[in-house]
Amino acid sequence: MEITPGPLLTTINSPADLKHLSREQLHQVCNELRQYIIDVVSVHGGHFAASLGVVELTVALHYIYNTPYDQLVWDVGHQAYGHKIITGRREEFHTNRKYHGLSGFPKRSESEYDTFGVGHSSTSISAALGMAMAAKYKGENRKSVAVIGDGSLTAGLAFEGMNHAGVADSDVLIILNDNCMSIDPNVGALKEYLTDITTSHTYNRLKDDIWKALGKLPIGKNFTREMASKLEHSIKGFVNKSSNLFEALKLRYFGPIDGHNITKLVDTLQDLKNIPGPKLLHVITTKGKGYALAEKEQTLWHAPGLFDKITGEIYKKKFDTPQPPKYQDVFGHTIIELAEKNDKIFGVTPAMPSGSSLKFMMDKMPDRAFDVGICEQHAVTLSAGMATQGMRVFCNIYSSFMQRAYDQVVHDVAIQKLPVVLVLDRAGLVGEDGPTHHGAYDIAYMRCIPNMVISAPMNESELRNLMYTAQLDSMDWPFVIRYPRGQGVMPEWKTPFEEIPVGKGRKIKDGQDVAILTIGHPGNFATTAIRELKMDGLNPAHYDMRFVKPLDEALLHEVFSRYDKVVTVEDGTVTGGFGSAILEFMAEHNYKAEVKILGIPDRIVEHGTPKELYNECHYDAQAIAETVRSMMKGKITVTQLLG
Amino acid sequence: MEITPGPLLTTINSPADLKHLSREQLHQVCNELRQYIIDVVSVHGGHFAASLGVVELTVALHYIYNTPYDQLVWDVGHQAYGHKIITGRREEFHTNRKYHGLSGFPKRSESEYDTFGVGHSSTSISAALGMAMAAKYKGENRKSVAVIGDGSLTAGLAFEGMNHAGVADSDVLIILNDNCMSIDPNVGALKEYLTDITTSHTYNRLKDDIWKALGKLPIGKNFTREMASKLEHSIKGFVNKSSNLFEALKLRYFGPIDGHNITKLVDTLQDLKNIPGPKLLHVITTKGKGYALAEKEQTLWHAPGLFDKITGEIYKKKFDTPQPPKYQDVFGHTIIELAEKNDKIFGVTPAMPSGSSLKFMMDKMPDRAFDVGICEQHAVTLSAGMATQGMRVFCNIYSSFMQRAYDQVVHDVAIQKLPVVLVLDRAGLVGEDGPTHHGAYDIAYMRCIPNMVISAPMNESELRNLMYTAQLDSMDWPFVIRYPRGQGVMPEWKTPFEEIPVGKGRKIKDGQDVAILTIGHPGNFATTAIRELKMDGLNPAHYDMRFVKPLDEALLHEVFSRYDKVVTVEDGTVTGGFGSAILEFMAEHNYKAEVKILGIPDRIVEHGTPKELYNECHYDAQAIAETVRSMMKGKITVTQLLG
Repeated sequence: MEITPGPLLTTINSPADLKHLSREQLHQVCNELRQYIIDVVSVHGGHFAASLGVVELTVALHYIYNTPYDQLVWDVGHQAYGHKIITGRREEFHTNRKYHGLSGFPKRSESEYDTFGVGHSSTSISAALGMAMAAKYKGENRKSVAVIGDGSLTAGLAFEGMNHAGVADSDVLIILNDNCMSIDPNVGALKEYLTDITTSHTYNRLKDDIWKALGKLPIGKNFTREMASKLEHSIKGFVNKSSNLFEALKLRYFGPIDGHNITKLVDTLQDLKNIPGPKLLHVITTKGKGYALAEKEQTLWHAPGLFDKITGEIYKKKFDTPQPPKYQDVFGHTIIELAEKNDKIFGVTPAMPSGSSLKFMMDKMPDRAFDVGICEQHAVTLSAGMATQGMRVFCNIYSSFMQRAYDQVVHDVAIQKLPVVLVLDRAGLVGEDGPTHHGAYDIAYMRCIPNMVISAPMNESELRNLMYTAQLDSMDWPFVIRYPRGQGVMPEWKTPFEEIPVGKGRKIKDGQDVAILTIGHPGNFATTAIRELKMDGLNPAHYDMRFVKPLDEALLHEVFSRYDKVVTVEDGTVTGGFGSAILEFMAEHNYKAEVKILGIPDRIVEHGTPKELYNECHYDAQAIAETVRSMMKGKITVTQLLG
Repeated sequence: MEITPGPLLTTINSPADLKHLSREQLHQVCNELRQYIIDVVSVHGGHFAASLGVVELTVALHYIYNTPYDQLVWDVGHQAYGHKIITGRREEFHTNRKYHGLSGFPKRSESEYDTFGVGHSSTSISAALGMAMAAKYKGENRKSVAVIGDGSLTAGLAFEGMNHAGVADSDVLIILNDNCMSIDPNVGALKEYLTDITTSHTYNRLKDDIWKALGKLPIGKNFTREMASKLEHSIKGFVNKSSNLFEALKLRYFGPIDGHNITKLVDTLQDLKNIPGPKLLHVITTKGKGYALAEKEQTLWHAPGLFDKITGEIYKKKFDTPQPPKYQDVFGHTIIELAEKNDKIFGVTPAMPSGSSLKFMMDKMPDRAFDVGICEQHAVTLSAGMATQGMRVFCNIYSSFMQRAYDQVVHDVAIQKLPVVLVLDRAGLVGEDGPTHHGAYDIAYMRCIPNMVISAPMNESELRNLMYTAQLDSMDWPFVIRYPRGQGVMPEWKTPFEEIPVGKGRKIKDGQDVAILTIGHPGNFATTAIRELKMDGLNPAHYDMRFVKPLDEALLHEVFSRYDKVVTVEDGTVTGGFGSAILEFMAEHNYKAEVKILGIPDRIVEHGTPKELYNECHYDAQAIAETVRSMMKGKITVTQLLG
């Protein structure tokens, strides 16, 4: 289906085309841009509400600044669709997030307008400051602008950037895109503070106080109310400036201004462009602006999938048979079941209540499940602190975001051997979100840390049992449970709890010649491969190891005494991952089998559907089958002999 | 040498013994405690100035709070010597930082008074908040106190903790120990802000403004100067409160107060103990307080080594022959040499100018070398931002602190393949600082990331050449250079620069039967081992691989075609490290050698001298020799045949 942009938008092939437009035409461009985003995303999918919220800001920035010479850094990048469309990518925009199509995020290799690749939050201030400092050193009059949401501002990295920007004497502008939202509503003291200043709460408190003080003064001939009012006014100016958190950090503060008033934005940016030094512009926007349903239900419409743009109906696939649940929902329901029986259980998420499904527990047990904001580091150390008091915290963090809390895992959890349960959702290749979000590294980066138990369920039942095991009083180790984005395999998933002894794998089937060792969900790919191989007369054994650490050594001794060809399969990086753990076991015990390691290769894997990527990375069922076949080439099997 | 504590301190075997003392006696305890720290540290070594700065605070906290029921969390823990001495560890205190002795940091396994193990900065707020939230949930009236320095407050984690604490409605007290220092002087906007409020800068500005406004008012019969003064006063109260950064984050702010006034501290803490909710007490202290030289040169006296407490002479070992330099100094001098010829080179350190020796460059080229404060995350993303503008940044971070910036390495450097040079000082076992500071994991956690070049020099000359290689225009990969704490091996270290082709190892010597593959400084252990083995008639080959990634595949093919016994040696974790990389190569090419991997074992390694730890961990020269011998047991060697 052809989607036609509006007549003015059609003429915008780069920001240069914007610059000769009149202010009135900018209004029209904004309207057409917003409509185009709605048209394309409703049909092709993608993140939705964030980009609608910054249409005016996007147009104003490219109108005023000399991009790409001036450097524009979008934080996270969910909101950069408008930016992509007006920087020469309008016609490819329908390929957004598709295999070999545009990235859902700004990306340096895609366009010179994408000055810094993003995906994870809160990097923009540091990156833009680095650019500004380089420009200053080189004597270039190049401007740097970071656009950061109030949600992203809660992460420590953003604070570190501001702490430096305030004293770096460089020409950086931070635009705070304040819409009170992360993916879920934003939380924390900073968010409340922003609400305070936006609603002039501080000023109003001051006014009350001053009138109270002045009320006691003898208003009369020499001291009139008018004079009192003048006094109040002069103090107000002082207070608004001196009471500002950003001014405290030596950033000149401007705003708040209405982020949907294009004229006001253009005027303000024009002024700010010529003010030297570090500064912050506070812009108030509405996530989902211009699409009524999205404005109303902002979490739902963050990335709604395909929808009917007229009726607002979000399409759901319909199935005749019951479908397996998402792993995240199994987690979300199961933690409640466990917490109902074990009053030591807490749940913590850094800004992913919906994505992790911890929201179920937050709704049901609000005193025991928390969203701490985009603060992975804090989430882990907080959990460690709670663990010292005997609490059993399930700290649920996407695998790729756990990279942010790596030191906290080592330093606060592992070294102290505190029994925190680290739940890594979105482990493995995540699909459309691409390289910044792939949970590729966690097996490798967790496995080198002492004291860690690292597990991965092959299905829903295993996930439940691992969660059950992790919360037992007898379990006194840090416990990682990793599982992928998306669905499991068991429509009837609510199986009774069963303890899984730590480090205990399971033999799924015996076989001949070759053993396939899998960890986690890709065990199901092996199952499919084995079915396929049967038709070739091949009959590999299959072991679901369940634990990357500790390994089931008894089971491995069985494997290596019986098989001299082994295939390992994981949805993690082949460098340093599960396969390497098997090789280390072999070296220690001097086993000499031939081993093929399947998993995420040692290169950046781009975006696409999970299926496309598993195939490309050569660890889907087909790849497993091929690998077994190639290992057996020229070897006559028992089955073939008998056949 | 016996060190005798003062008469009152001798009676303090736990905080309970403090509680029945009079206020006057508290003065005496403080004096004796300070003297005892000076006496012991001057003779036994350790961190010095930080603990002197919090003597009064330490005594006051244990006097007022019901420790260990109430939970006291010391941030970093350099300052916790007084705490250790008065919580039952006075008599063992001379074993501080020694093998099998007390840890230099609070440590849960050492004492119930050490509520949270520390070493890295900025964890205390999150940990204490976790404790406070658990107490609240359990209905316990248990207090939690975090003591954090102004340096530690710059790290994002501390901000994340405050952002949550402000809205968590839990009973946590944050004590800001403001001494304007990290190890080097503190930097950043926050530091300037703290100076502002401490010196009443804001209030003074307000006063000027108000008098200016009031000056225009008709002071007279109805409106007297006295009334104006009253008005000023009421507004001052409001402003001091509303203009406070911590109040903006919903923390009730108290102070600043003099941290060396024990009476004031005791009174204030007594009051605060009964004020519910999250609050912050700003305490002004002097690092090194009570030892004049340490007050004056705070960086030098942070951890001075042994010294004459009377004269202040810091003992230096004297040698008859020229000694090899510290690796950090080779870095510090070499970056200047390179930067003088390559104007794209920048240096960045997060709060370790002295420790990394980047200070040499900061002094000589202040516009090209920066301390960004305890902000590892920001340091890396800032460097990435600079790299987009063609700068070549050497970002020097201790290996164990790089854990804090792991996501930034993956997300901002590696995925974008930006040629940032990540210099990991203190890689491997660091010695006396122990488990929190061992640079044990970097090979494993870096190796799984695509696009990374990972190198380690075996000596000073190699370090120089790797630095030279990393800054060449032709080098367009992220480049890790890791080296240990302490000295190298070459007194004549200033060798001419030579490019090392990426991924090119070197054969140090041919041999028979066994090949030893080393990475980095432990190559020197192998050299020693080989000398020793010669006497047994054994003659292993030795290869210095130089790069963990990419591996020198040509060299490895040579190794595995010629030797079927291989020993790998690294000062990194044996799980997922250099040895595993060799195993992966073997699996890929189906080599079947017997391989022994020597390195840091998969458990928490405690503190001691590096030599003690290398020995314990079985990768020193002796261990290498033993391993070779054990592999050769029963095998007659060529040398023996000829002999």
